[in-house]
Amino acid sequence: MFFHVKELQYHAKPERPDPVYARKLQEVLGGHFGEITVAMQYMFQGINCRADMKYRDLLLDTAAEELAHVEMLATMIARLLDGAPIADQEDMAKDPLIRDIMGGMNPQHVIVSGLGAMPADAVGNPWTAKYTISSGNLLADFRDNLSKESQGRLQVVRLYELASDPGIKDMLSFLIARDTMHQNQWIAAIAELEAREGVVVPATFPRELEKQQVSYTFYNFSAGEASRMGRWAHGPSMDGLGMFNYVAQPPAYGEKAYLHPAPLQVHDTIPAPGGPNMPLQGPLHPPMK
Amino acid sequence: MFFHVKELQYHAKPERPDPVYARKLQEVLGGHFGEITVAMQYMFQGINCRADMKYRDLLLDTAAEELAHVEMLATMIARLLDGAPIADQEDMAKDPLIRDIMGGMNPQHVIVSGLGAMPADAVGNPWTAKYTISSGNLLADFRDNLSKESQGRLQVVRLYELASDPGIKDMLSFLIARDTMHQNQWIAAIAELEAREGVVVPATFPRELEKQQVSYTFYNFSAGEASRMGRWAHGPSMDGLGMFNYVAQPPAYGEKAYLHPAPLQVHDTIPAPGGPNMPLQGPLHPPMK
Amino acid sequence: MFFHVKELQYHAKPERPDPVYARKLQEVLGGHFGEITVAMQYMFQGINCRADMKYRDLLLDTAAEELAHVEMLATMIARLLDGAPIADQEDMAKDPLIRDIMGGMNPQHVIVSGLGAMPADAVGNPWTAKYTISSGNLLADFRDNLSKESQGRLQVVRLYELASDPGIKDMLSFLIARDTMHQNQWIAAIAELEAREGVVVPATFPRELEKQQVSYTFYNFSAGEASRMGRWAHGPSMDGLGMFNYVAQPPAYGEKAYLHPAPLQVHDTIPAPGGPNMPLQGPLHPPMK
Amino acid sequence: MFFHVKELQYHAKPERPDPVYARKLQEVLGGHFGEITVAMQYMFQGINCRADMKYRDLLLDTAAEELAHVEMLATMIARLLDGAPIADQEDMAKDPLIRDIMGGMNPQHVIVSGLGAMPADAVGNPWTAKYTISSGNLLADFRDNLSKESQGRLQVVRLYELASDPGIKDMLSFLIARDTMHQNQWIAAIAELEAREGVVVPATFPRELEKQQVSYTFYNFSAGEASRMGRWAHGPSMDGLGMFNYVAQPPAYGEKAYLHPAPLQVHDTIPAPGGPNMPLQGPLHPPMK
Amino acid sequence: MFFHVKELQYHAKPERPDPVYARKLQEVLGGHFGEITVAMQYMFQGINCRADMKYRDLLLDTAAEELAHVEMLATMIARLLDGAPIADQEDMAKDPLIRDIMGGMNPQHVIVSGLGAMPADAVGNPWTAKYTISSGNLLADFRDNLSKESQGRLQVVRLYELASDPGIKDMLSFLIARDTMHQNQWIAAIAELEAREGVVVPATFPRELEKQQVSYTFYNFSAGEASRMGRWAHGPSMDGLGMFNYVAQPPAYGEKAYLHPAPLQVHDTIPAPGGPNMPLQGPLHPPMK
Amino acid sequence: MFFHVKELQYHAKPERPDPVYARKLQEVLGGHFGEITVAMQYMFQGINCRADMKYRDLLLDTAAEELAHVEMLATMIARLLDGAPIADQEDMAKDPLIRDIMGGMNPQHVIVSGLGAMPADAVGNPWTAKYTISSGNLLADFRDNLSKESQGRLQVVRLYELASDPGIKDMLSFLIARDTMHQNQWIAAIAELEAREGVVVPATFPRELEKQQVSYTFYNFSAGEASRMGRWAHGPSMDGLGMFNYVAQPPAYGEKAYLHPAPLQVHDTIPAPGGPNMPLQGPLHPPMK
Repeated sequence: MFFHVKELQYHAKPERPDPVYARKLQEVLGGHFGEITVAMQYMFQGINCRADMKYRDLLLDTAAEELAHVEMLATMIARLLDGAPIADQEDMAKDPLIRDIMGGMNPQHVIVSGLGAMPADAVGNPWTAKYTISSGNLLADFRDNLSKESQGRLQVVRLYELASDPGIKDMLSFLIARDTMHQNQWIAAIAELEAREGVVVPATFPRELEKQQVSYTFYNFSAGEASRMGRWAHGPSMDGLGMFNYVAQPPAYGEKAYLHPAPLQVHDTIPAPGGPNMPLQGPLHPPMK
Repeated sequence: MFFHVKELQYHAKPERPDPVYARKLQEVLGGHFGEITVAMQYMFQGINCRADMKYRDLLLDTAAEELAHVEMLATMIARLLDGAPIADQEDMAKDPLIRDIMGGMNPQHVIVSGLGAMPADAVGNPWTAKYTISSGNLLADFRDNLSKESQGRLQVVRLYELASDPGIKDMLSFLIARDTMHQNQWIAAIAELEAREGVVVPATFPRELEKQQVSYTFYNFSAGEASRMGRWAHGPSMDGLGMFNYVAQPPAYGEKAYLHPAPLQVHDTIPAPGGPNMPLQGPLHPPMK
Repeated sequence: MFFHVKELQYHAKPERPDPVYARKLQEVLGGHFGEITVAMQYMFQGINCRADMKYRDLLLDTAAEELAHVEMLATMIARLLDGAPIADQEDMAKDPLIRDIMGGMNPQHVIVSGLGAMPADAVGNPWTAKYTISSGNLLADFRDNLSKESQGRLQVVRLYELASDPGIKDMLSFLIARDTMHQNQWIAAIAELEAREGVVVPATFPRELEKQQVSYTFYNFSAGEASRMGRWAHGPSMDGLGMFNYVAQPPAYGEKAYLHPAPLQVHDTIPAPGGPNMPLQGPLHPPMK
Repeated sequence: MFFHVKELQYHAKPERPDPVYARKLQEVLGGHFGEITVAMQYMFQGINCRADMKYRDLLLDTAAEELAHVEMLATMIARLLDGAPIADQEDMAKDPLIRDIMGGMNPQHVIVSGLGAMPADAVGNPWTAKYTISSGNLLADFRDNLSKESQGRLQVVRLYELASDPGIKDMLSFLIARDTMHQNQWIAAIAELEAREGVVVPATFPRELEKQQVSYTFYNFSAGEASRMGRWAHGPSMDGLGMFNYVAQPPAYGEKAYLHPAPLQVHDTIPAPGGPNMPLQGPLHPPMK
Repeated sequence: MFFHVKELQYHAKPERPDPVYARKLQEVLGGHFGEITVAMQYMFQGINCRADMKYRDLLLDTAAEELAHVEMLATMIARLLDGAPIADQEDMAKDPLIRDIMGGMNPQHVIVSGLGAMPADAVGNPWTAKYTISSGNLLADFRDNLSKESQGRLQVVRLYELASDPGIKDMLSFLIARDTMHQNQWIAAIAELEAREGVVVPATFPRELEKQQVSYTFYNFSAGEASRMGRWAHGPSMDGLGMFNYVAQPPAYGEKAYLHPAPLQVHDTIPAPGGPNMPLQGPLHPPMK
Repeated sequence: MFFHVKELQYHAKPERPDPVYARKLQEVLGGHFGEITVAMQYMFQGINCRADMKYRDLLLDTAAEELAHVEMLATMIARLLDGAPIADQEDMAKDPLIRDIMGGMNPQHVIVSGLGAMPADAVGNPWTAKYTISSGNLLADFRDNLSKESQGRLQVVRLYELASDPGIKDMLSFLIARDTMHQNQWIAAIAELEAREGVVVPATFPRELEKQQVSYTFYNFSAGEASRMGRWAHGPSMDGLGMFNYVAQPPAYGEKAYLHPAPLQVHDTIPAPGGPNMPLQGPLHPPMK
């Protein structure tokens, strides 16, 4: 169960309205790496957690904090919209400043949300659960959490660079610091799990069942060998179980691809008789019926 | 530019058709962590790369390999569909085996693709570029690449467990090994960048601008303190720049949230006069016009 | 801010696993009228609320309860998945019961979520914020809330009819009762606002600016007049401000539609000279440049 | 069957082109509450109707009218685009007026639709049938119809406030009046059905099967009790079958949530032995196979 | 304006219910090439038409017919659902026939639409206006119309092959014939426009502005020259203005791609000093500010 | 398998940055008719090809070229973004030129992609595989390929008209020429297949099974007969197998539509007894259970 308290985790008060900036700020509320994503992701990982209770708790604690960030950002956006132009725009357009606002803001902030925040990104794509990752394998999931906090902090930092309002900057400096913690936190949790399981996910698949000859090979699928210069091309592999090697001209292990003609009832194109598709001697598998 | 050769990178030949398995296999072709995702992601990261040439080459080499995996998986799926029931189903339904196939396969594999693979996942969601991450910050992006290879290998392993056909298992054992390499490869590249920049992304944001008091604090937003038991709750932070600390009862730094009434032209609900919304003394910012 | 407690609001324990039912139950977790929708909708309406504090509180209280329902449903789904077939399926398919499970369950529940609930509906469409309504006009929004609780209770009731497990039925009977309350609650809040404002949304638009001649007219756009038999076709209008009237043969107030040819640089098709598009005497508006 | 007549239901002629306004007007053509949505929604509800013929006719009559509104809005948008800048933009950009148009219009109105209307909203999201509700339960569906007409009229009114062109305002005043009728119409139809069935949807579910102890309880899931001040917190319930009551501190009826460890073949994280997940004594349900 | 008549254009009556087939039939109602797509596509092309009136009329006549097909297909689907299993499924599952229905039908046909048709495809993806093409260039658009009628007839034919119910087959044989007409119709309209304009779209772009050296060249971007065997590789081009030629080894006209480092405020990865990205002598364009 | 070479197929170098144009150019990279679409479409058609080897090769050769176009366009977009405003925007906004850039560019080009190209269209919709057509019937698919190259060349031409930078124009003139070739190429391949099979897709469906009475009839579903003036309304049909005929007043072959009441467990609305839905004498099909 969740309980709400009315105080915000941190201040969300701009010095003055700025509907153009409000549109940009939507990215870290309702975009791919916005607060809705991490709140939902940690909530699903936590509820679905079949492993140690401390991980479940870690996830749900952080999910709850991200809900507080949703609240802060949405509040900030609503306040930035206080000054949006909402009346006869021809009249207003005589003022160049208002004209710029009309050009740069999201018109849905007036027409659809009535000066409220939307669960959408900076160009208006609605948030989607396609962003939410929860696999049941915590090492895989924590790596995604670290990815999301890295992209998320990067975006908040870019928004900080674009801002001039001290109230906005103050709130973003808080979110940036929390993202510093969250990156550290997932690195710590990853380190615990890697120490327990090893670095390759999933750790539980028997190594002898994979085609180990190619488990540490870098294939150079291009002209030129600039890719030979990195750590991934030589030396012991990162999991400590093999040696990286670099293949400048990758071989094809398979043969030329071809497919059998489709049965007539599928109404695919039938190859011309005697044509170059003909080496094939009838269907590999007799079609069922 | 890209060039094609007709041989497959590895064999993609099942022993017998299996349209039900074909549906499941779509997940690692056209799902969130399928081969289309990594091909497109590495291609965009590579083309957009503004950093060292070796990283650009690393990305485009791997992108090209992932295109070969798209080809292998799509070929395998088309071959598994060779035996799909494609005629009067009432007639066929007398055979319980065929009845099971009809229940478990994706009907679009006949109606839409004519026994061909589709750029979609195991339940038919078409692939979307929402899956593709490319931020220009390579440490952030490589972390996402590692996440994608971790989730990807996990899914291929699960499909291996569900398979019985030796031809399918053979191909999957190759893909699992390549994912072992790709996880190792991104771990290696991440290690290089972390050594150069530090572990918090982005490394270029001045630390004094973030609210450092909360950069290493874990907030316990729940009843119970199971989350105190992990590495993230005590000891030096993973970036080596602070000490983790655990706050059992997180404070609110902000005040109660409220918003100004909207101007009349927005036609939002106006608060009742004298009501509990009234402490607010008029609009904070005079609305523009 | 939000806080979490570890107890569920109500029991979510099936008597036995049932992966096929788990797929169906996803509808009321991650579908259009599932718990994620109402949680997000009430949260955004509450945070964006510019009206009376009691409505903001009403919305956020209910949002928090819906988060508890997300938790209950996701837990139930994960438990129903405990028995999903997760190994060599050919082998298992000799058991007809398991064969039915494999046919009817969502394969992503194994491959993608690892026996966890997903933020998606019964056929696998991921949840989207397109479902979330928040306009700033509370009467409009509460009507949508009532719609969502009506559709939601309807779907839970249908799922109840499809269930046989006493544990599932017990949990659903709790959710059905809560939906009874939530329908009652929004009806009550709507009644308050209608008493204050009138029934037509938005109430604040001056009536003399709308084309009042057609404000209470029912147009019969079909052959036959069955639609004449309802309350909407005669008597005083529901807002008490007019009389319904029924027009059996609706007139066209406008003229035939036509458009000017496009400027050449747009490369639209140009009408043939002297052709039937020609009555038009040159462009109505000279194209800009 | 449907037949077309070439006259528009009402005039759709602006005094002068305005590509920036055209972009905004897209919202009520192809947005969530635009005319495509109501046309499709009423058409599907009508065709799927298994109840009284008068409701089927009501729905299909209104669907046909909404198709006429699609036609009017699309015609208006195409005419507003007549003056869009379509040539060398650097040259044109010397004129500040044209520069503003280029900044505020939707570039797809030139590149994609060639000065035509698009089935999309004001920020370019294509229309989706996710907006379409048709459940077979008419009381539930009519409530959604009322919601859509409420949001729809609200958006048209906001667009009216933003307009200055008399031709646009004239057309919008017609649409606003029709939305007045449509709100009245659905309120009337809802009243009929509520009189027949009662107010809780669906009316056909036996009340003794729901957990009636909680059917009229408001839970205060937050600090503070502002939500106690509304009609929903005391007095007889709106369905006349119970008394509202307010619970200031909601109890948890369920126990702490936990899940069983996953079978090995799923490759989820396995809890550490002896760890805090351990009270659980083995799987509740033996995994199948 | 549109008017409705209550008779169906053609019979839509199955001999018996078949919920599993209903799911498949959804493809040609609400899929990419279903009737909703062509109805919307022709309607938007017609309303947006800036060319000859006869084309506008052609489009809107056909749009109206496609609406009638939407009605027929939706009615058929609703009737096929008459027999869907809608009660305690455990009980029913003792009957193997009902078990098969439960496995193969779309559960949303009960839970969401209450035995009604949905605007969605055979796997449940909701219809989207992304399928709708309307460019203002009729030759381009009529080619897409021909494509859609070709894919559409192909899918209906495949569904015919899968059907056994005489009522279904009768309705499909009508739709197949109408698609024969519609393919013929668009071929006829295309022939008219090609005779007027030439075959390359758009015809109005001055040929001397395109890089004519490569206007008729086939590049063989693969090992092997099977692609040399077609009409596209030799002889006069289809527009009569050039000669096809085949280049076995395509050249690169451009140089190696590289990008300038990003300004610091973007927080992209900065290339290592002295590294392989260094030949570049500073930014090509000084960044603005 | 695919191999990469580092040289671009053609130059992609603007004379100066232009972030506003970069946003527009995204349409032909990641929009419906952008290069990602054709690359993916030809790749899937090629891999899925069950017909003549020359068609498979044709498709994969062209797929590989389209990947080179993805690379060129993405490189051009990244270079156009070199000058994007990336710092304190209030400060910059004093310069009217920069203000215009901020209004017209896509803010995600800074916040999300860090001055890189995105797999999205001109208004930010991410690319989706819904655009990708591959049916197994090559005549149907090649018609779609011709449609896509027609829409694609049209869009590139419109972008050419909007451009002033010589470097952009130079690259676009190359892409326009390649689209000339690709239109010619698909016309040639279509001509081959039509000569082999006839013009109606699919050619393999027995004509006697379609309702041939309506295979060449044009129905005038509107008031007025402008649609009678085209080639589609008279003369021999384009497939040479019938005569077009024009029906000014289309008949209804079917009866009035109605549906049976739903079983009680579905909780649809039940028709009022004795009402107009009553001619129906009980369910046509007894509901199963």
